[in-house]
Amino acid sequence: MKGHNYDTDDIIFALSTPWGTSALAIIRVSGSGCVDVLARLFSRPRALSDSASHTLVHGQLLDDESKKPVDDVLISVFREGRGFTGEESVEISCHGSMAGVETIFRLLKRVGMRPANPGEFTFRAFMHGNLDLTQAEAVMEIVSSESELAHSLALERLEGSLFSRIEDIKQEVLTALSVVEVQLDYAEDDISGDTTFPLETVIRAQKQIETLLATYSVGKLYGEGARVVLAGSTNAGKSTLFNLLLKEERSIVSDVHGTTRDFIESKTVLDGIPIRLYDTAGLRDSSDSVEQEGIRRTRKLLDQADLILLMLDGTEHDEASALQYKAAYEDQRYIVVWNKTDLTAKPPVKGSFPLSAKRGEGFSALRDEMIRRLRKDAKRPGGHDVVIESARQRDELERAQQALFQAQELAQQNVPLDIVAVELGEALDALGLLTGEVASSDILEKIFSGFCVGK
Amino acid sequence: MKGHNYDTDDIIFALSTPWGTSALAIIRVSGSGCVDVLARLFSRPRALSDSASHTLVHGQLLDDESKKPVDDVLISVFREGRGFTGEESVEISCHGSMAGVETIFRLLKRVGMRPANPGEFTFRAFMHGNLDLTQAEAVMEIVSSESELAHSLALERLEGSLFSRIEDIKQEVLTALSVVEVQLDYAEDDISGDTTFPLETVIRAQKQIETLLATYSVGKLYGEGARVVLAGSTNAGKSTLFNLLLKEERSIVSDVHGTTRDFIESKTVLDGIPIRLYDTAGLRDSSDSVEQEGIRRTRKLLDQADLILLMLDGTEHDEASALQYKAAYEDQRYIVVWNKTDLTAKPPVKGSFPLSAKRGEGFSALRDEMIRRLRKDAKRPGGHDVVIESARQRDELERAQQALFQAQELAQQNVPLDIVAVELGEALDALGLLTGEVASSDILEKIFSGFCVGK
Repeated sequence: MKGHNYDTDDIIFALSTPWGTSALAIIRVSGSGCVDVLARLFSRPRALSDSASHTLVHGQLLDDESKKPVDDVLISVFREGRGFTGEESVEISCHGSMAGVETIFRLLKRVGMRPANPGEFTFRAFMHGNLDLTQAEAVMEIVSSESELAHSLALERLEGSLFSRIEDIKQEVLTALSVVEVQLDYAEDDISGDTTFPLETVIRAQKQIETLLATYSVGKLYGEGARVVLAGSTNAGKSTLFNLLLKEERSIVSDVHGTTRDFIESKTVLDGIPIRLYDTAGLRDSSDSVEQEGIRRTRKLLDQADLILLMLDGTEHDEASALQYKAAYEDQRYIVVWNKTDLTAKPPVKGSFPLSAKRGEGFSALRDEMIRRLRKDAKRPGGHDVVIESARQRDELERAQQALFQAQELAQQNVPLDIVAVELGEALDALGLLTGEVASSDILEKIFSGFCVGK
Repeated sequence: MKGHNYDTDDIIFALSTPWGTSALAIIRVSGSGCVDVLARLFSRPRALSDSASHTLVHGQLLDDESKKPVDDVLISVFREGRGFTGEESVEISCHGSMAGVETIFRLLKRVGMRPANPGEFTFRAFMHGNLDLTQAEAVMEIVSSESELAHSLALERLEGSLFSRIEDIKQEVLTALSVVEVQLDYAEDDISGDTTFPLETVIRAQKQIETLLATYSVGKLYGEGARVVLAGSTNAGKSTLFNLLLKEERSIVSDVHGTTRDFIESKTVLDGIPIRLYDTAGLRDSSDSVEQEGIRRTRKLLDQADLILLMLDGTEHDEASALQYKAAYEDQRYIVVWNKTDLTAKPPVKGSFPLSAKRGEGFSALRDEMIRRLRKDAKRPGGHDVVIESARQRDELERAQQALFQAQELAQQNVPLDIVAVELGEALDALGLLTGEVASSDILEKIFSGFCVGK
């Protein structure tokens, strides 16, 4: 592949745990012969060389020159065909000191191993037929999942549920293609010219593709998450609502990064949907150039938002003044929040959500509305539904769908069956690319280079 | 123990790898019966329950209620007496998704396990006699080591080298004590009153303690590292030297944190010594209050520094003007650097180090001087020397040393031997505390609560 060397003959290694001080660090090593190469650096070479698959060998890594111990380690051994990559591989569990990890890296290089490229372990698992492409993608989606539901949906794909759905569709298309091809074989003997197009089979395939395609928006929502922006004037109570939302569900990453004075970003989860939450600066008119820059950034944030909570201070607004935000009531991306109901007896402006962010009154209804808007018409998936998350998968499904429509249309126009067969072949090709059965090295490079190192 | 519950009857768990997205995460579980408890959450309960020590079992963790898969995991099994803690324990290798780790944590709690306290796995290893206290401390020193030499010195302690040195010393003191005690036993029959103090034995013990104590400054230097501050006026070339020093040895943590506008901090390693390097704001007089605050912080930094490089711009100074820094030439904490030798033909001020930071000329000599000053008179230890790093260990050694001096002195003054025996007992007690043989729960709490969770 271009750019990276994904040569499968090398023995590769990488840190598979995050870079940082901790109790343990895991260095993954994969490639034919790696156990014996490592045994040359090990205090108990025979124990390691003779070890069976799925056993743990305790000992010390030794410097290849001084023969002195470099670290106390536990080595997990996976014999060919038994581990994640499908190759002979090991995992070195060492002390979680970065100085120690660097020393071990140098040792491994000295005995001829090379640092792994992003996703290279998964790439090898794919090349050895341990995973199809949808499962390889699921590996990365699992690792980067930001809510338990996203994790669970990706896990389902890793177990091969998407792969077997695609295989089912492929079977339908193959059946249709064989019906067409049989007629092509006999076409020369058949003077009548009457042909039969396997319409029902193709429609079944189309329906299945449609069902999968419909899950993309859901998969994307739970996989990538949504951007929610709090907007409104300075004293409208944005920060109070911001904190309410963060407290709502325990956030996996709860760090609040003070980025600039323009906005604060934080992460939370709303009913399984990973949320990036932005608390913006007030949208006042200003001649201060720094503040104008802040406003420009806020506007950019608003453009990219999936949902905007426009906070109005109920003590300061009335029906008339609230009208200036008329556009917001008509935009599904906006929810107008009528805040400070604890301080005013005025009725909320029509179409807005009454809230006392301070007391939490009205919060539950607002939260439900937020979830409803984010999910649009899609229902919340169960953790075991088959859901697609990758744009690449969607594109291939759409290509297959398009080819099937085309085949159907051509058949109705009595176009010769060999042309119809080409379209069915195109659909099969798209499905084959989806699972990686017929993937080109370009596509593989694109997919795997987006992975993290060590996976 | 106070504060934390270190009850050894519980099954404990913790994330042993850093918190963050990565290929793998390791959750450590320890406690009698933990394999069977975990088997209730496992897709292959029999395979796990029947597994031998040091084997890896692949399968899925299942939700205890829905029985649906939560993650695909690889479980390392350590039977009682065979693993790090000495108890039955497992390591769960799961996908490195924090959402997934949180789900698994919840599952483990639901089946009755509890989150581990800091250092609790090492605490259990100590309680089960797998490690003495010097080795337990070495575990933490290894993990937090910031240079390969520090790592290697701590590893040596983990292998028990310090423990066996202390045991040797204890044998000498025990021998001395038995000589004294035999005389005490016969004292009533012996009217002469002549007693023999085992002087040579006590002196041998003292010499060994002295040798160990002398390593403390070295251990501290390589373990904790040193603070080096670059000071001098704005255009003296501090940043150029800062970058030279960072490039010198590949730094393990090379992130430069822009903290305030007062100084920049970065980490590097100089001949095995972990260095915290500070590039300060110039020390100009200023009436600007913000800048005065900056200067105040710089002065604080200078007070805490182990070494200060005072940069003079050779193009701007002469013998007379350089005299204002007279104090610096006499202070071993200061190295005066005469920079920009490439731009001036003026001879460097006496006592300063000529340097062209831009061209790197003179850098090697400066670097050697820095190392010499930091190390003072101590020689660079080999990776396999016995070196103490902990202030606690130093304190106990000093107490033992003091007691032995006292015993010697009392014996010379012909004080009755039972009083001498008390001093020898005191020395033994200090050595016993050092290895944890006789450690009280207060001391244990203090030591282990400083550890990181998961170790």
